[in-house]
Amino acid sequence: MIVSLAGGVGAARFLTGLVRVVPEEELVIIVNTGDDIELHGLHISPDIDIILYTLAGIVDEEKGWGVRGDTFNCLKFLAKLGCETWFKLGDMDLATHIFRTNLLKRGFKLSEVVDDIRRRFGLKVKVLPMSDQRVETRIVTDIGELHFQEYLVKRGASDRVLGVKFAGIEEAEPTPGLIESILEAEAVVVCPSNPIVSIGPILSVKGVREALLRSEAKKIAISPIVAGRPIKGPADKLMQGLGLEVSAYSVAKLYSDFLDVFIIDQADIDEKDRIERLGIKVISTNTIMRDLKDKVNLAKVVIEQVRGSRNQIL
Amino acid sequence: MIVSLAGGVGAARFLTGLVRVVPEEELVIIVNTGDDIELHGLHISPDIDIILYTLAGIVDEEKGWGVRGDTFNCLKFLAKLGCETWFKLGDMDLATHIFRTNLLKRGFKLSEVVDDIRRRFGLKVKVLPMSDQRVETRIVTDIGELHFQEYLVKRGASDRVLGVKFAGIEEAEPTPGLIESILEAEAVVVCPSNPIVSIGPILSVKGVREALLRSEAKKIAISPIVAGRPIKGPADKLMQGLGLEVSAYSVAKLYSDFLDVFIIDQADIDEKDRIERLGIKVISTNTIMRDLKDKVNLAKVVIEQVRGSRNQIL
Repeated sequence: MIVSLAGGVGAARFLTGLVRVVPEEELVIIVNTGDDIELHGLHISPDIDIILYTLAGIVDEEKGWGVRGDTFNCLKFLAKLGCETWFKLGDMDLATHIFRTNLLKRGFKLSEVVDDIRRRFGLKVKVLPMSDQRVETRIVTDIGELHFQEYLVKRGASDRVLGVKFAGIEEAEPTPGLIESILEAEAVVVCPSNPIVSIGPILSVKGVREALLRSEAKKIAISPIVAGRPIKGPADKLMQGLGLEVSAYSVAKLYSDFLDVFIIDQADIDEKDRIERLGIKVISTNTIMRDLKDKVNLAKVVIEQVRGSRNQIL
Repeated sequence: MIVSLAGGVGAARFLTGLVRVVPEEELVIIVNTGDDIELHGLHISPDIDIILYTLAGIVDEEKGWGVRGDTFNCLKFLAKLGCETWFKLGDMDLATHIFRTNLLKRGFKLSEVVDDIRRRFGLKVKVLPMSDQRVETRIVTDIGELHFQEYLVKRGASDRVLGVKFAGIEEAEPTPGLIESILEAEAVVVCPSNPIVSIGPILSVKGVREALLRSEAKKIAISPIVAGRPIKGPADKLMQGLGLEVSAYSVAKLYSDFLDVFIIDQADIDEKDRIERLGIKVISTNTIMRDLKDKVNLAKVVIEQVRGSRNQIL
């Protein structure tokens, strides 16, 4: 069993490759829910939906989120009703939010709802929200504290970052089976996601980091930073805000307590020595996933590392 | 002030004419909520929305309900998720349901929400749901008890009607201002709506019938039955199921305790004597509203009766 820790778009791209290299039934994807937000009374789980839509083959690939070919008529009407509509919710996408909100209201846990939607999409991969309790990633900025989505989507990541908080993280229990999956995994793959606001919350859920340290799984991460810049998203601004260097090395350092292998882009080959001095094996390859071939290749590089480990163990 | 008791499509057509004859500010529309239903966790108020969409000029006139030019992409996606989608919810229409559900969840009363939506649509007419408490019209049929929408929309009014219940009606309080509006009205107009399931629930809310009897307003009704058949909807099946004759006379009889004037279609001129023997004045005119001119003409016939009354009082 291979466990992945995932955020949104970057993770989804990588996982599209991974499901073509490893049978879906052998995959567990642990997904960040710190980005979740309630809008118009609906529970939105952006990272989970990106993963599900992508694996179901219905994601809007150009945007990286939402459903391909979606319309925005409901949102336009919500605007007429005077609602804030900075968070773009398509009509088809809204069906997921309505469906999820309805099940949550009826007392189901988020993990149960996600598992239900996953099956309705015909997916065999196991998708686990990091917690059934609400955790809210809040960005402390020079204009005050903002929900991550307000910081990113509403205000275009334009505010100076002073800190990051995961509200509710102390009370958040890992979803049932999450810790066990890490402990029993053959490998844990940290997807090329934002280390601060995508992987950060997952690693902060109680017991997760300890499980990674205890687990005999091979722990492999793919750098979301290439040549000093994130492929997508505000990782650079968040890292800078926290006083971190924006580099593959800096990401490796965040994971260095548990990480065995770090996969960096060829563009960052000069980071190799520095990262290896953290006690982490470094593999350099093309990590920029422009098409399915890139995604499958990157997945193969990861799986090679797992199989290598297996051979050593056997 | 003119108070109308209203159901859905028939009422909305008549009111389109009325707002062109009487200033909006002088109108109060009391709307049936017995048809309300929760679907996908959203609170749907079909009659209220038909009235609001129609008066706002955005209704799908061909259907009589929903928003003109609406799409159904959310519903199609809900179907993919395995949801029942017999109740047709358009994407724009859904915005209203999402908006209303969110405000109800936040503790606002239905009447407050309706007033808010009404204002957001730029309407000056006052729209009062009959009650802020849930009343559910249930049709007792040969296959069991059904929510009215299940009976009508899901099963196409195909089941034999044995009875009609308004679940929750004993506990339902009239919305604030409703009784006062009837008592202070110059006229109360019962729209050409289903007497059993549209006007019936309103008349059953505690205090409403008594207010109609006490009020000095001229009470005028327009027959929804023309030549022994309803213009639209299942009024015939419901009336038959309750052992009632399907006729204008039969409707007049249901309102005879409070009614002053009954407006029937020219086609029902032979009903006139029978209805007048109930102590009700009868006016016959064209009641079939094919276009705006028909609607305005019918409204004028009604208002003539009110002005007549005024002149007599003065």
